[in-house]
Amino acid sequence: MTTRPPAEIGMTLDEVDTPALIVDLDAFERNLRRLPDRIGGTGVRARPHAKTHKCPVIALKQVALGAVGVCVQKVSEAEAMVQGGVPDVLVTNEVVGRQKLRRLASLAHIARVGVCADDPSQIRALDEAAGEAGVTLPVYVEVNMGGNRCGVEPGEPALALARQIGQAPHLTFGGLQAYHGSAQHLRGWEERRQAIAGAADKAGRTRDLLARHGIECPAVTGAGTGTFEFETASGVYTELQCGSYIFMDADYGRNLDRDGAPTKAFEPSLFVWATVMSRPTDDRAIVDAGLKALAFDSGPPLVCDEPAATYERASDEHGRLGISGATNRLGLGDKIRLVPGHCDPTVNLYDWYVAIRGNRVEQLWPITARGAVY
Amino acid sequence: MTTRPPAEIGMTLDEVDTPALIVDLDAFERNLRRLPDRIGGTGVRARPHAKTHKCPVIALKQVALGAVGVCVQKVSEAEAMVQGGVPDVLVTNEVVGRQKLRRLASLAHIARVGVCADDPSQIRALDEAAGEAGVTLPVYVEVNMGGNRCGVEPGEPALALARQIGQAPHLTFGGLQAYHGSAQHLRGWEERRQAIAGAADKAGRTRDLLARHGIECPAVTGAGTGTFEFETASGVYTELQCGSYIFMDADYGRNLDRDGAPTKAFEPSLFVWATVMSRPTDDRAIVDAGLKALAFDSGPPLVCDEPAATYERASDEHGRLGISGATNRLGLGDKIRLVPGHCDPTVNLYDWYVAIRGNRVEQLWPITARGAVY
Repeated sequence: MTTRPPAEIGMTLDEVDTPALIVDLDAFERNLRRLPDRIGGTGVRARPHAKTHKCPVIALKQVALGAVGVCVQKVSEAEAMVQGGVPDVLVTNEVVGRQKLRRLASLAHIARVGVCADDPSQIRALDEAAGEAGVTLPVYVEVNMGGNRCGVEPGEPALALARQIGQAPHLTFGGLQAYHGSAQHLRGWEERRQAIAGAADKAGRTRDLLARHGIECPAVTGAGTGTFEFETASGVYTELQCGSYIFMDADYGRNLDRDGAPTKAFEPSLFVWATVMSRPTDDRAIVDAGLKALAFDSGPPLVCDEPAATYERASDEHGRLGISGATNRLGLGDKIRLVPGHCDPTVNLYDWYVAIRGNRVEQLWPITARGAVY
Repeated sequence: MTTRPPAEIGMTLDEVDTPALIVDLDAFERNLRRLPDRIGGTGVRARPHAKTHKCPVIALKQVALGAVGVCVQKVSEAEAMVQGGVPDVLVTNEVVGRQKLRRLASLAHIARVGVCADDPSQIRALDEAAGEAGVTLPVYVEVNMGGNRCGVEPGEPALALARQIGQAPHLTFGGLQAYHGSAQHLRGWEERRQAIAGAADKAGRTRDLLARHGIECPAVTGAGTGTFEFETASGVYTELQCGSYIFMDADYGRNLDRDGAPTKAFEPSLFVWATVMSRPTDDRAIVDAGLKALAFDSGPPLVCDEPAATYERASDEHGRLGISGATNRLGLGDKIRLVPGHCDPTVNLYDWYVAIRGNRVEQLWPITARGAVY
């Protein structure tokens, strides 16, 4: 069930079997440095989201460049990160159920492990699990920033939970989880700026309310690749949860910078490597990467290096490329790079990153938390 | 990277961790028997598609009930099936690239392994690989039934390839791959009937053309869960490639029978088991199964046992259920069953089937070919 790597160290890219998940190391490393470069001197720390990469090798590179730790969404992802050597992991999510709470608390023997809550019964369950394990868990109150998913409303509801956490014998109050997910893909720079101004206002007023009740807020954590510059400048947020910045994807690539042009904040570094496996007509090329090799929730992939080809339709194991006759260069057996529509669920389909430098396979990284949904 | 099973044998369903992929064994076994029951006495054989289940345990159950073997889409799936004891596997797809052809040919030392072709250069490459491995490969000509994916056009183009295969020293002509994928989800019974009448006409005329040129066609293989009754009755098809019939899904459930009612040919037996992890408002429940626990290419899952709840929106690890206040029964920590929109890519997200009888975990089946994309 763990597949063999589709490559060996030292191979040329063209020898790598397909479909494969390719990381362009030069682009990846530029992205990796760009986030700490952008926030250097502001006092705001990075806590990159590991749900994007699911790989402790990458998490440790982020920590080495100054990240305070990483975020995850699931206990099983936290297990992969802690077991992979990451010293500080925040589950930016509610954790429900006795088995999961036990597993979570057990990790606190090895690393700092935080978790979110948005309900009093959950805080009681977390306290019980921490007490049984003999650990202390930092618990963050998740506040609804407008995405209407999890989280209590800002202000009094958040204060009530923070107070309950502070009074629980085996918990400490970690801060506010204030991620505004639905702002990340607003296309216009000004739209995103306004959305985060609203979120920072909600989070700031909640933080101040807590302070007036004698509760210090150790962290206000949130932000994503689409909006982090606004949270950084807000004076409210203390941690950034950007994940996709290391890879980018077609969806984030459609965001616009302040000048109205497609964002240049980061560059694509993650590709699905695919083979043309059928070439039945001049205007149609079929590649071997479909629904089980790419995520389509944010649209189809972009075809690299072949501007006249468009990924038109996916089935389980096929992708149909429409090709304009004028640039009909893709032949049977040719290999091409596709930029995934959405990086996170695409990564979750693979067991290995094939990390390329120039034209050579330099490293193979296991995607340890692939499939870690529980 | 191979996740632990989310259950232990003997647990009650409620104890199974979430998200988990659940098989209701009673419903599954009824589906499993219904296909051979429906085609018994017709002379048409089943060759179920293992891309649906990716599990040799299930493949061997299908063979035990009379299937001639199974189909797969990828060489790595063929490896999982042959290594799991399946004696006859057809790759219903083109296989391109030297590494893949070597792996394919090597399997022919253990089992009967067929493969498709739609291009002369591929037939030469298959012959070379079979010769190097010292095996003989049955090669099927894929014919375009109207889906405009892979495949040559019916008639003369297919004849030319069949002749080339017959003349290749290390290949035998296996027959015609004549799957009409785009007919499977035409909703009306009569629409599907007409589509398959057209496909059977194309396949039958091609078979007859081959016969007039002295080429016997050992098999005409195709059909899916949506249309198999028409291929069975066609007098042309000799093998059925239905896959989804064992599980069904929300998309197939929208097909209509002859009487205009939603299909009752098979019943849902595959579910994603999920937990309500946040309950921030009366009209909103958040479950722990999102884009990494369910496939959304054919729409969202259906919520079982809770008719007033609708799966409204997915993010990576969350699903938002809209709930009408009148039947607001889903509480924090409650577990529910979801019927996936599309079973095949949903199965590909998991390492284990949790097979349930009544309310107990009876078996755990590894999804050996999970992630087998190459």
